[in-house]
Amino acid sequence: MSQTEAPFPESPASSDEYSLDDLLQFAESNALNALDKSKIARTSPYTVGKFLTRLPVDDRRVVLRLLNIEGVAEVLSEMDSEDAAEVIEAMRQARAVKVLEALDPDDSADIVGDMEEANQHRLLNDVNPERAETVRTLISYPEDSAGGIMTTDVATVPKEFTVRQTVDHLHTLHDEFEHIYYVYVIDKNGHLLGTVSMRDLVMAKTNDIIGDIMHTELRGVLNVLTDQEDVTLVMAQHNFHALPVVDDDNRLLGMITDDDVIDIIQQEATEDFQKAMGAGGDESLNDPIAESVRRRSPWLLVNLLSAFMAGGVISLFEEQISHLTILAVCMPIVASLGGNAGGQTLAIVIRTLALGDFEDQDARRVLIREATKACLSGIIVGLIAALAVGILGHHWDVSAVIFVAMIISMSYAGLAGALIPITLRKLKLDPAQSSQMFLTASTDIVGFAVFLGLGSWVLL
Amino acid sequence: MSQTEAPFPESPASSDEYSLDDLLQFAESNALNALDKSKIARTSPYTVGKFLTRLPVDDRRVVLRLLNIEGVAEVLSEMDSEDAAEVIEAMRQARAVKVLEALDPDDSADIVGDMEEANQHRLLNDVNPERAETVRTLISYPEDSAGGIMTTDVATVPKEFTVRQTVDHLHTLHDEFEHIYYVYVIDKNGHLLGTVSMRDLVMAKTNDIIGDIMHTELRGVLNVLTDQEDVTLVMAQHNFHALPVVDDDNRLLGMITDDDVIDIIQQEATEDFQKAMGAGGDESLNDPIAESVRRRSPWLLVNLLSAFMAGGVISLFEEQISHLTILAVCMPIVASLGGNAGGQTLAIVIRTLALGDFEDQDARRVLIREATKACLSGIIVGLIAALAVGILGHHWDVSAVIFVAMIISMSYAGLAGALIPITLRKLKLDPAQSSQMFLTASTDIVGFAVFLGLGSWVLL
Repeated sequence: MSQTEAPFPESPASSDEYSLDDLLQFAESNALNALDKSKIARTSPYTVGKFLTRLPVDDRRVVLRLLNIEGVAEVLSEMDSEDAAEVIEAMRQARAVKVLEALDPDDSADIVGDMEEANQHRLLNDVNPERAETVRTLISYPEDSAGGIMTTDVATVPKEFTVRQTVDHLHTLHDEFEHIYYVYVIDKNGHLLGTVSMRDLVMAKTNDIIGDIMHTELRGVLNVLTDQEDVTLVMAQHNFHALPVVDDDNRLLGMITDDDVIDIIQQEATEDFQKAMGAGGDESLNDPIAESVRRRSPWLLVNLLSAFMAGGVISLFEEQISHLTILAVCMPIVASLGGNAGGQTLAIVIRTLALGDFEDQDARRVLIREATKACLSGIIVGLIAALAVGILGHHWDVSAVIFVAMIISMSYAGLAGALIPITLRKLKLDPAQSSQMFLTASTDIVGFAVFLGLGSWVLL
Repeated sequence: MSQTEAPFPESPASSDEYSLDDLLQFAESNALNALDKSKIARTSPYTVGKFLTRLPVDDRRVVLRLLNIEGVAEVLSEMDSEDAAEVIEAMRQARAVKVLEALDPDDSADIVGDMEEANQHRLLNDVNPERAETVRTLISYPEDSAGGIMTTDVATVPKEFTVRQTVDHLHTLHDEFEHIYYVYVIDKNGHLLGTVSMRDLVMAKTNDIIGDIMHTELRGVLNVLTDQEDVTLVMAQHNFHALPVVDDDNRLLGMITDDDVIDIIQQEATEDFQKAMGAGGDESLNDPIAESVRRRSPWLLVNLLSAFMAGGVISLFEEQISHLTILAVCMPIVASLGGNAGGQTLAIVIRTLALGDFEDQDARRVLIREATKACLSGIIVGLIAALAVGILGHHWDVSAVIFVAMIISMSYAGLAGALIPITLRKLKLDPAQSSQMFLTASTDIVGFAVFLGLGSWVLL
């Protein structure tokens, strides 16, 4: 990590905090009790969070006992909310409640949302009523909506305030309000009127009136039900550090900060890639084996069905194959190239969709272009394959069949690689979901059918 | 887009600015000259940038002529630097120079870096000398290093300044310094001593001394040569909005802001996915067809080689296949399932590596676990495949062979799906690069060999 590459005099020397490697060594040698209490308190919560994720539940408690409430809250806010929920559920009631109160409201809502319902009630009953109410409201929004991501710790002032009054007001806000870059200006019914940045406050005179210096041309205001993927696109579009979230009546409910967006973007990228390959969108290497198998198997069974269909195509040509076994030798070559040529297109189309760079009217042009690209690749690769088969096997008639079959099957693959995610999106389904499997299923079937069909016709 | 879902009174009504759809319709009907000058000036630069990317070079000029220098600079900063370079290269010298001066230094460096060398010299000769020097320095850093991403527009003060002096100094800085969230405190040789946030300035008294209120426990300081992937990990680790960039002697050179990081994260996610599938990491759907084909073909030729190896394996069993053609029917089923089971693991491992959640000592455990998961999937899927073949084809002996072959080949696939990216990383290569192709190459070969070998032995 670059921290160690940057020699910085005042930065904590490596002996002052644990690295993840250090911590893992303590765990491996069953020496968690030997961890230094003040050293672990100085270690970055992110590192401790990563470490905890790799520990069994009992060992997590040993580590967390070394931290005070604020320290535990910081670590938990860096962890997966599911893991964090597990940790809190295992705590004594009094400590669990204190930790929930020390967390940012959005983090505590994420974590409580991942608990069993009985535990939600048990804990929220003891959390201070105002916070409990906030958490209950936040849980009620879909997890992947703006409401599910936003924090409610927002600094608001009326437009009549002076800069001095505003700064005084900021002083009264609890330290927990770490995310103040913007002060939101609201009317007495909570409607959003404008924003003032910290920089504006620094630059203004103390007697200036907020209503005069606030920005009212507000872009990037999010509705509370906006999907998180759209949130990332809006954030990328406007280079703001926080976007306000409002209800249908433009009442300010909270805000989303760009560090939350960074996490969501990573999560969406992971989901797209893993789902495209037929794994769980939020699956991790540390998930229990049984759970991974349970989540991956349905897609493998879909794949089995499609593989049987491909096998069915081959069985139509069993007699031809028994006479001319080189057909069996060459058919997977045609199918394999089709699958991979389609996969190249598929990846680019899925990413283009994810980045919001695709409009419906682009579909026809993209399909034609991708089929063309794959067709040209097919001519190049098919020619080389044909030469190789001719030279190695002296089967020049088979060469000709391979050449033509490869062009057809690869052109189809380019088309399918674009068509599958675009169609899934059109059907309001996730364009990534298992599309690699659908793709190779169809390229196998087409590849086998074209090659064996052509081969039987020309060669026998 | 969610903007329209959020009815906001002061937000620009849709009639005040063009949507991307509006703009595309002007282009389709060859009516670019009918675009409203003041309306396009109000349109988000991001939208105009997206629109320009889709236009031929000549049409781009028609649109850009409607904007003033600042407007052009804003639009170009939202575009791909390659596209933006093309636009500027096509401008008259005087206008091009003004646009380069109006851009943020980091953006102008990115764009100039993508020009032909002759154009770089021609333009930088006329740009004001200080800016030209900055651009030349920035270009000298690798494009995907901290130095290649950072901006040099950083607000610095000595530690002896009071808060009032600091605020006065900020007032003197040019408006271009839009990214002031932190003021960096340096000594007279430019060494970084600490940071003060805008929020600190708001909260402090005007007579406080910067040296007393600055944060000196600096985390996340980046060396200028840090790789951009590590930059994203450091940014995710510390929830800061800007990270300082220093040289080996801890002299402050610039800073990286989190909106830059959001772009890099998207770009890295795109690269990983597209490269894994054997397409170009920065390939886009709009690239010229010839260029796409040129970039994708080498990997298809690698794939052709591996497909021939798989064909070679099959050719060892040609005689057996001619006697028992069901072998040819079933062999792609075994190979296909192997490829997809391996792909599930591959995607999760690549994302885990990208997110920095993998340590070298995890390798053994991950390999064993992934092979186990795939083996269990193999038992489930193999059993169903065996039943299907038995019931459909009354070949119960073939069923038994499929069952065993599937378990072996899928276990291998799980192992390979983890081993390939981990090994590529160990060899300091990109773990994503074409790993899906390497994977299916090896799962095809193993699948055919195991199934045909077992089949020949048991059935003949």
